[in-house]
Amino acid sequence: MTILNHQVTLKSRPVGFPQASDFDLIEVPLSKPGDGEILIEAHYLSVDPYMRGRMNDAASYADPVRLGEVMVGESVGRVIESRNPKFPLGTFVSGMFGWQEYAISDGKGIRRIDPAAAPISTALHVLGMPGMTAYFGLLDVCGVKKGETVFVSGAAGAVGSIVGQLAVIHECRAVGSAGSDDKLIYMTDELGYDAAFNYKAVDDLGEEIRGLCPEGIDVYFDNVGGPITDAVFPMLNVGARVAICGQISQYNLKERDLGPRLFWHLIVKRATVRGFLVFDFASRYREALTHLTEWYQSGRLKMRERITDGIENAPHAFIEMLHGANTGKQLVRLQAADE
Amino acid sequence: MTILNHQVTLKSRPVGFPQASDFDLIEVPLSKPGDGEILIEAHYLSVDPYMRGRMNDAASYADPVRLGEVMVGESVGRVIESRNPKFPLGTFVSGMFGWQEYAISDGKGIRRIDPAAAPISTALHVLGMPGMTAYFGLLDVCGVKKGETVFVSGAAGAVGSIVGQLAVIHECRAVGSAGSDDKLIYMTDELGYDAAFNYKAVDDLGEEIRGLCPEGIDVYFDNVGGPITDAVFPMLNVGARVAICGQISQYNLKERDLGPRLFWHLIVKRATVRGFLVFDFASRYREALTHLTEWYQSGRLKMRERITDGIENAPHAFIEMLHGANTGKQLVRLQAADE
Repeated sequence: MTILNHQVTLKSRPVGFPQASDFDLIEVPLSKPGDGEILIEAHYLSVDPYMRGRMNDAASYADPVRLGEVMVGESVGRVIESRNPKFPLGTFVSGMFGWQEYAISDGKGIRRIDPAAAPISTALHVLGMPGMTAYFGLLDVCGVKKGETVFVSGAAGAVGSIVGQLAVIHECRAVGSAGSDDKLIYMTDELGYDAAFNYKAVDDLGEEIRGLCPEGIDVYFDNVGGPITDAVFPMLNVGARVAICGQISQYNLKERDLGPRLFWHLIVKRATVRGFLVFDFASRYREALTHLTEWYQSGRLKMRERITDGIENAPHAFIEMLHGANTGKQLVRLQAADE
Repeated sequence: MTILNHQVTLKSRPVGFPQASDFDLIEVPLSKPGDGEILIEAHYLSVDPYMRGRMNDAASYADPVRLGEVMVGESVGRVIESRNPKFPLGTFVSGMFGWQEYAISDGKGIRRIDPAAAPISTALHVLGMPGMTAYFGLLDVCGVKKGETVFVSGAAGAVGSIVGQLAVIHECRAVGSAGSDDKLIYMTDELGYDAAFNYKAVDDLGEEIRGLCPEGIDVYFDNVGGPITDAVFPMLNVGARVAICGQISQYNLKERDLGPRLFWHLIVKRATVRGFLVFDFASRYREALTHLTEWYQSGRLKMRERITDGIENAPHAFIEMLHGANTGKQLVRLQAADE
């Protein structure tokens, strides 16, 4: 019997927020792995803000997805057929397998997952790219030090929720912004943020941030950009470090947004702003995962998942994530995960 | 006979560009230096963009000048009366003596100048703050490396003209923008810039910069901010470093300017933006001055001065400098210089 592989492809390039109609669900017969290859059944698919950028036909740090091509994305799954001795049958792996139920790989660039160490889905967040993004961004790009005030935007999302906890682990004051009261409760009650606010419910962002950061901001971990960043900059302390991880407030704008010019603050505060990609730290992934795993297993790093079922619902899950529906990590659980 | 000291004080806080009427010229009888003090007759007064910030009643890295107070500024002059053995009669010194013909100092924070090494006025530019600002900004903040493309805004001014030459000395491609054709000729014919353009004569800044920097921009030394910075950012290379030294395009705006949000470029290019003040490098001034003096004496660092005569014309010289009238360093020559 031929297994059918369901895939989500890019149908049209969105203007503004993506719509379900920008995607196609197709089914293709599953081919057989060749020599040196493995067949993976995906259990969980990650949907992340960066994918919005890949839907545009614009130069960036990676090529755009072409029309008709399977959407890019990382998933975690199990090897169900192996012609590569490095990945025996039953091995759990994660990799950039795309938005599909099955994938064939030659094993390059994929990672073995130990299902005894943590639920395999964590390979897509706290023990995966988002976790490492938080780790390198806060510890290396920002060089956070004990006692500092760390401000996080998008503070309850996949990356932000880990940044806040890493700040607490490093004995910092962690303050964050998010877009719902549910997220605020999660941040202060579960993640250990010292203070949090709902930016949608605040009249004056500057006043709010000033109130919550009476000693100014030493480190700003920015996932969001836009008006929150505008309000943070005047609060930066001398020698502040800003890591630009994402700018999600800008990804779905139909017209280019304008904002106040912020660089004068950098002179006055002798502050540094650095954009980064986790890939630039690839040689140190093992170090990061070792620490993140320790903290996770000891209960110091908590996580929450928002699960959407079925590859056919991946576009919906992605769009909801872009609208901020997720507290913690948005995942798509595929059929194989239930078997 | 009592000598009268002419001083320029701040009369009113400007909105937009300063006017001559924002300043007062007063004369006060000269007091005598006390024990441990020296009396300095100033020969040259420096007028610099940062002074515009001190005219505002706003928190910055230094306190504003109060109304009725002598304007801040550095000058270079000669000790004409000494009750401090460290500074014998006839010693040339530079210091923050303010906009006045004579000053009394206890010797703290002032620098001895060797008139045999270079004209004393150079202590206010190529062998002074502007020179050291260029030195630390380009070499330390940007960490410039041989073969890189260095873009300088405000490239013919006191700091920019040195940055471009330091880039050439470090075997970089130096490209710069300035606001007059006279400045362009100076930049390419005398300073050694590889390319230059007049931003006032260009329709599309982005296209111009793309044409002059076919391999992108590795280092951006920004004195100006605003539309030039907007046009530079898309041209940054992976790993680019941006030093924010000044934002002169913004200092005289009556209303806060808006611009495109630039931080997405920093992620794509994994680029760093850092604001700095030369004062943060105070422990290394000697190192910088040693190198700058060597390069100046060997003819590798050229300089040009624009001289305005008389303390009474200091406001005019300052305002002209803010309008970009100076190629090279704007100075005010005081009466004592002619004696």
